[in-house]
Amino acid sequence: MNFAVKGFKASSVYCGIKKSGRPDLSLIFSEVPAVASAAFTVNKVKAAPVLLSAANVKNGRISAIIANSGNANAATGKQGLKDAKLTASAAAALLGVAAQDIFVCSTGVIGIRLPAAKVIAGAKNAAGKLKPEGLFEAARGIMTTDTFSKTATAAFKLGGRGCRMFGMAKGSGMIHPELATMLCFILTDASISKTMLDLAFKACVKESFNSITVDGDTSTNDTALCLANGMSGNRPVKSRGPDFSVFKNALSGVMLSLAKQIVKDGEGASKFIEIEVKGGTDEASARSAAMAIAKSSLVKTAVYGGDPNWGRVLSAVGNAGINFKESKVKIFFGRLKVVSGGIELKSLNEKKAHRALSGKEVKITVDLGLGKKKAKVWTCDLTEGYIKINAHYRT
Amino acid sequence: MNFAVKGFKASSVYCGIKKSGRPDLSLIFSEVPAVASAAFTVNKVKAAPVLLSAANVKNGRISAIIANSGNANAATGKQGLKDAKLTASAAAALLGVAAQDIFVCSTGVIGIRLPAAKVIAGAKNAAGKLKPEGLFEAARGIMTTDTFSKTATAAFKLGGRGCRMFGMAKGSGMIHPELATMLCFILTDASISKTMLDLAFKACVKESFNSITVDGDTSTNDTALCLANGMSGNRPVKSRGPDFSVFKNALSGVMLSLAKQIVKDGEGASKFIEIEVKGGTDEASARSAAMAIAKSSLVKTAVYGGDPNWGRVLSAVGNAGINFKESKVKIFFGRLKVVSGGIELKSLNEKKAHRALSGKEVKITVDLGLGKKKAKVWTCDLTEGYIKINAHYRT
Repeated sequence: MNFAVKGFKASSVYCGIKKSGRPDLSLIFSEVPAVASAAFTVNKVKAAPVLLSAANVKNGRISAIIANSGNANAATGKQGLKDAKLTASAAAALLGVAAQDIFVCSTGVIGIRLPAAKVIAGAKNAAGKLKPEGLFEAARGIMTTDTFSKTATAAFKLGGRGCRMFGMAKGSGMIHPELATMLCFILTDASISKTMLDLAFKACVKESFNSITVDGDTSTNDTALCLANGMSGNRPVKSRGPDFSVFKNALSGVMLSLAKQIVKDGEGASKFIEIEVKGGTDEASARSAAMAIAKSSLVKTAVYGGDPNWGRVLSAVGNAGINFKESKVKIFFGRLKVVSGGIELKSLNEKKAHRALSGKEVKITVDLGLGKKKAKVWTCDLTEGYIKINAHYRT
Repeated sequence: MNFAVKGFKASSVYCGIKKSGRPDLSLIFSEVPAVASAAFTVNKVKAAPVLLSAANVKNGRISAIIANSGNANAATGKQGLKDAKLTASAAAALLGVAAQDIFVCSTGVIGIRLPAAKVIAGAKNAAGKLKPEGLFEAARGIMTTDTFSKTATAAFKLGGRGCRMFGMAKGSGMIHPELATMLCFILTDASISKTMLDLAFKACVKESFNSITVDGDTSTNDTALCLANGMSGNRPVKSRGPDFSVFKNALSGVMLSLAKQIVKDGEGASKFIEIEVKGGTDEASARSAAMAIAKSSLVKTAVYGGDPNWGRVLSAVGNAGINFKESKVKIFFGRLKVVSGGIELKSLNEKKAHRALSGKEVKITVDLGLGKKKAKVWTCDLTEGYIKINAHYRT
């Protein structure tokens, strides 16, 4: 694969954190400082790199990302913050930029001190390997329990100028809205103002990463970052209009693709589940209902078993804290209607219902029958695999 | 086993709902109308028997309980309510009491019409078998996926009079605060006013059934009921004082025992986990933190694997939506301190920490280091067994 974004170089190396010997350090560099938007975990326990990067991104400018996998540098106290700063300073020196222009990320095990010396030695090695076609390699360097690397690309035109966008993400467990053990980096050579980038990014985060759940746990390290270095030379996008729409569509496509890839790689997942709640009086309650279904262990295990147990879906809606009328609810598995007026269809064919849940991709639709607002979220089934992966992650 | 409570008779029969042929209908009768307190599910989807029983208990008086297992009579629309009323009327006729004095309960599969004719025929059979020593038998008749029946007893004195109390409960999945797929009946021959019974019962529900979680799902049928028929002849408890304390202690003991039995029988559970959060500024935030830990799939799988992954415990507290200082947190596994000042103890022996999580009963303590308020909750680990039970419950 070969896809480059003007002005960006990347690489990944093994610096000695992972026992497996697989790449555990990625470096991404923009030849000119990029306009930056970021979103971070809402967990009150924030990892050291989250604290440092949140401070560094405040002025809206980032030149490079240094991201290690295998160690989260979370719950590491003052020492953790020192280690994150050491990493940033080392990367800054290597790349000839200011330390405040470095974005530091870590994911992996919580509570173990980051081996900063290893990371710094690795950074030196990675800096020597930076190349425009290194983006896919960098995507592999940020993986932890992921079984495949997650990337998405877009090419689009702004004012006649060809622009490109590359997105990479990691994460497969501890995945829940407001981001998760998740990293996502979006790189584009489009030229766009900080205000408009923030506007587009915020909307896309909501529709993508804040609309997925694997296990309901929000991690201490979740971070999403979008860098726009303007090197495509388009006239800067500074307001709403056709160019902004084109940019936002590209961003939305890349981020939605990455979010769905994360769910597909959900720990132990055997099925990808799309949940749509429509017929709501407002979008927020449709979203709450969809997320309540997506979070229900009982729904997720039923989908795993191909069991058309729609009662669990209805019960999950009942737990969503929204107002609705049970007697108006319709439920569909795939295109098959199974519930109307809140009760099972008399003509329901159990075998067909079972079949509707049997594929690798399952869709559950709930129509609240009250209005026109809707929301879509994505999750995966809950299997023995999730238990196996998480019962012995450290020891 | 032989334990009777003055004035109460009970029995159970097989009426034809369960495929296994095990008892699926229990009848409990008080010779005189009993003072009644009840608590019901907060799920917006309420089963027909919940709606009917909530109406019947409003006047504070109940004479009999009829409870079937195997069919929840939930999401069954108007027909479901008709079926529940038919059941109540039949039981009332058999026992010579008013239909409004019957408390109806159902648990089992959602969305399938209750076979009312079978239940009514079964009720006739059960009425003929009522006997004072039938309480343990009735506890078996309400079981669904339970692997053992849950009972607890107490004997106490009020104003010199010997009083007795018998509690039974069922439930092992869909267990979460505000009650769960759970039924709990407490029968006592103590004499107590409706006001004081409500006061004691409400407090005990909070400390017992609202302090446990198995899988975070709150069912459509959860019901807890306490009946006090006054046949011990004690001077009625009508206000706070020594007698009220004695009664409340007995009730608390019985309900806590039942709640813990439910967790121990959690679907697929291999370990019982007690979580205590102390050092809080207020009880509500201590409880939120404890419940966030208890609900975390990552904590529950780590305990299953005996993995001393305290980072998941700290991260769960970070997700609890409470204010706390990471740098003041202490964490203990059993009596072993693993975290102090928010970071891992330097002297921590990983093997000892692993051992602290290896028994059948595990205790996790978090000290927030802020105040003196605390809360305890109970849960179980998350194992492959939970997946197996729930992936194929119906089909």
